[in-house]
Amino acid sequence: MRQSQLFTKTTKQISKEEVSLNAQLLLRAGYVNKLMAGVYTILPLGLRVLSKIENIIREEMNKVEGQEVLMPSLTPKENWETTGRWTSFDVLFKLDDASDKEYALGASHEEVVTPLAQKFNTSYKDFPFSIYQLQTKFRNEPRPKSGILRGREFRMKDMYSFHTSQADLDAYYERMTEAYKKVYERCGLGDKTYLTFALGGTFSKYSHEFQTITEAGEDDIFICEQCRVAINREALPDCNNSCPKCKSNQLIEKKAVEVGNIFKLGTKYSSAFKYNFVGEDGKQAPVIMGCYGIGPTRVMGTIVEICHDDKGIVWPKSVAPFEYHLIVLGDDAEVKATADKLYADLTSAGKEVLYDDRADVGAGAKFADADLIGIPTRLVISAKTLKENAAEVKNRNEENSELKPLDSFR
Amino acid sequence: MRQSQLFTKTTKQISKEEVSLNAQLLLRAGYVNKLMAGVYTILPLGLRVLSKIENIIREEMNKVEGQEVLMPSLTPKENWETTGRWTSFDVLFKLDDASDKEYALGASHEEVVTPLAQKFNTSYKDFPFSIYQLQTKFRNEPRPKSGILRGREFRMKDMYSFHTSQADLDAYYERMTEAYKKVYERCGLGDKTYLTFALGGTFSKYSHEFQTITEAGEDDIFICEQCRVAINREALPDCNNSCPKCKSNQLIEKKAVEVGNIFKLGTKYSSAFKYNFVGEDGKQAPVIMGCYGIGPTRVMGTIVEICHDDKGIVWPKSVAPFEYHLIVLGDDAEVKATADKLYADLTSAGKEVLYDDRADVGAGAKFADADLIGIPTRLVISAKTLKENAAEVKNRNEENSELKPLDSFR
Repeated sequence: MRQSQLFTKTTKQISKEEVSLNAQLLLRAGYVNKLMAGVYTILPLGLRVLSKIENIIREEMNKVEGQEVLMPSLTPKENWETTGRWTSFDVLFKLDDASDKEYALGASHEEVVTPLAQKFNTSYKDFPFSIYQLQTKFRNEPRPKSGILRGREFRMKDMYSFHTSQADLDAYYERMTEAYKKVYERCGLGDKTYLTFALGGTFSKYSHEFQTITEAGEDDIFICEQCRVAINREALPDCNNSCPKCKSNQLIEKKAVEVGNIFKLGTKYSSAFKYNFVGEDGKQAPVIMGCYGIGPTRVMGTIVEICHDDKGIVWPKSVAPFEYHLIVLGDDAEVKATADKLYADLTSAGKEVLYDDRADVGAGAKFADADLIGIPTRLVISAKTLKENAAEVKNRNEENSELKPLDSFR
Repeated sequence: MRQSQLFTKTTKQISKEEVSLNAQLLLRAGYVNKLMAGVYTILPLGLRVLSKIENIIREEMNKVEGQEVLMPSLTPKENWETTGRWTSFDVLFKLDDASDKEYALGASHEEVVTPLAQKFNTSYKDFPFSIYQLQTKFRNEPRPKSGILRGREFRMKDMYSFHTSQADLDAYYERMTEAYKKVYERCGLGDKTYLTFALGGTFSKYSHEFQTITEAGEDDIFICEQCRVAINREALPDCNNSCPKCKSNQLIEKKAVEVGNIFKLGTKYSSAFKYNFVGEDGKQAPVIMGCYGIGPTRVMGTIVEICHDDKGIVWPKSVAPFEYHLIVLGDDAEVKATADKLYADLTSAGKEVLYDDRADVGAGAKFADADLIGIPTRLVISAKTLKENAAEVKNRNEENSELKPLDSFR
């Protein structure tokens, strides 16, 4: 894409109330725009990043036989009353229509997916299966303050699995744990993300969060480096203040942000909706469920919290909006023609390129923008590089640049 | 995908209140599930179709330099008050939060995109540009009744263009007209879709709708076959009951469904938000806007209304959930192994295949399901075809089948 055509621009001025680093960088670089507290427009650069994160998640969910759907955001009050969450889920946005029928905006979808699954699958032969979506969720957070880490409207991948035995759920839950690890690895958060024991509710001693270490996080976790697991503060007493795996009490306290959570729901929702299956023996029993959430917008914000320096964002290649940031300097016709040709060559070879072809912007401003936007590889074409028949190549996460012959890009 | 793993099933029983043909077929075949009036879950088969339609739209919008974003659904009351639509837009869903701040759920996004564009672009050098999104919209329709043709929650592509002169808007509007025609052609609706003159509001004599002829439509249009344009009933008087192009009064009345509309907004929204640009002469003037909408879910429903027979849906290849429906008959091990191998060969060649590998379903039921689901090409492997080392190939829109050697699929 030609940067001269991009309708967004970088900016130095952002609102002082924006205290979180992810929001500051994403706003300044033109990835998001704030409509109001906790509610952001995803701009063209941001949508490219978000789509890459969502596609990584989609691929990993498909590998564990997830079936993608799109459930509604408008959900009827009755379903939430069936589970008791109309009153107990305190961040539900509620509304009514012309005939005073009441609805909640989907903040989670157990109340939709359980009767949906029930409609199609009631024989033991139909199990197991799992259903997921990538969707916009709404939560009436009283004080959203962490940029896109905790929004009132945000993107979410929520998956729900359905089983006829606890053993089958347990085995699938293990596979999902590995699938989640893979997602964070592919998004560049693998090193800093820990499988974290949290409280589990009625049907399971523990649930599990995936926590990424950053000072921007709202959670305190206690890490066992040996086992690469952690414990959320709330679960420490249940763990006797020691690692659930090796029992060591050498735990390191860190601030972290929850980038995912997985939960054995047991029969909580199937019982509420009277969702039973008929077993091989002809007897009925309640379906056993698990649920698995990741917020792609939160993952995007977390990556920015982790991957930046004092000049801007340093995107991991897997989620960067473009692979190359091609910059042309000066207004010499031959230099411009060379840069145009390199842009055409790279794009026709299937490479994703942001081409800074802006005529009225100086070298310093172009370099500063490139650092702020944070695309992995910067290519510069100037009178100087043209003399060498080369482009200057510099990786965003390295100090040094090198000249590379122009024909090596073909 | 293996049909034995698909969590949805076809069904003969659907609610009697579902009177629209698109909803009947889509529900019976397992493309959508109804949560409540006008609100549907898009199921795995349906999401494949919807994604294909949305990608066709995305490709055509990108070709006319559209820049994709994702705007929020939660929008602040102030923005709607600025344009006067808080009270005049009668289908807005309204809600408030814990602090009694009021919001509307996005039913259209002029109130968000205008101040967004204003934030970045105020010099004549920045123009023209256009911004679009593919997003879920909400409209509090009092009596949704046409299946997914008119929902209370539905998918929408809305694009907004920004110009410094009427001539520039007019030229872009012509390009968009062609882009829209291309979308309907690619979705299989080209023959039955007419550029239709409708009333234009303050800033333009006409707006334009794209109307697809079907008895399921809620609109009456008057067609000039010569010019391949039509007039909406409401615009007939303004057109003197004759074709706006050739002036003929030989118009044919038809029922049709509006599958898109494009509109010259002029300065209606830029004036409300005081969105001016600074011209080359240093003087300020209000920005001139256009808007362009298509509902992907409505397009999906319209395709079903047009493309079906008494056995089920007949998807155009471009939007079909899969290219092949491979069916294995009987439980002979060699037959099954042959079908498994053909499935593996086709998928590894990048073909999209739904593989009916269900063990406990007879040939008649499998064929009936295939006709209902409506995938373009059916392949059958049975003891009979195996003898010939062939698969039976039948196109959904043809009566006859033929045997094709198995090795021709490799």
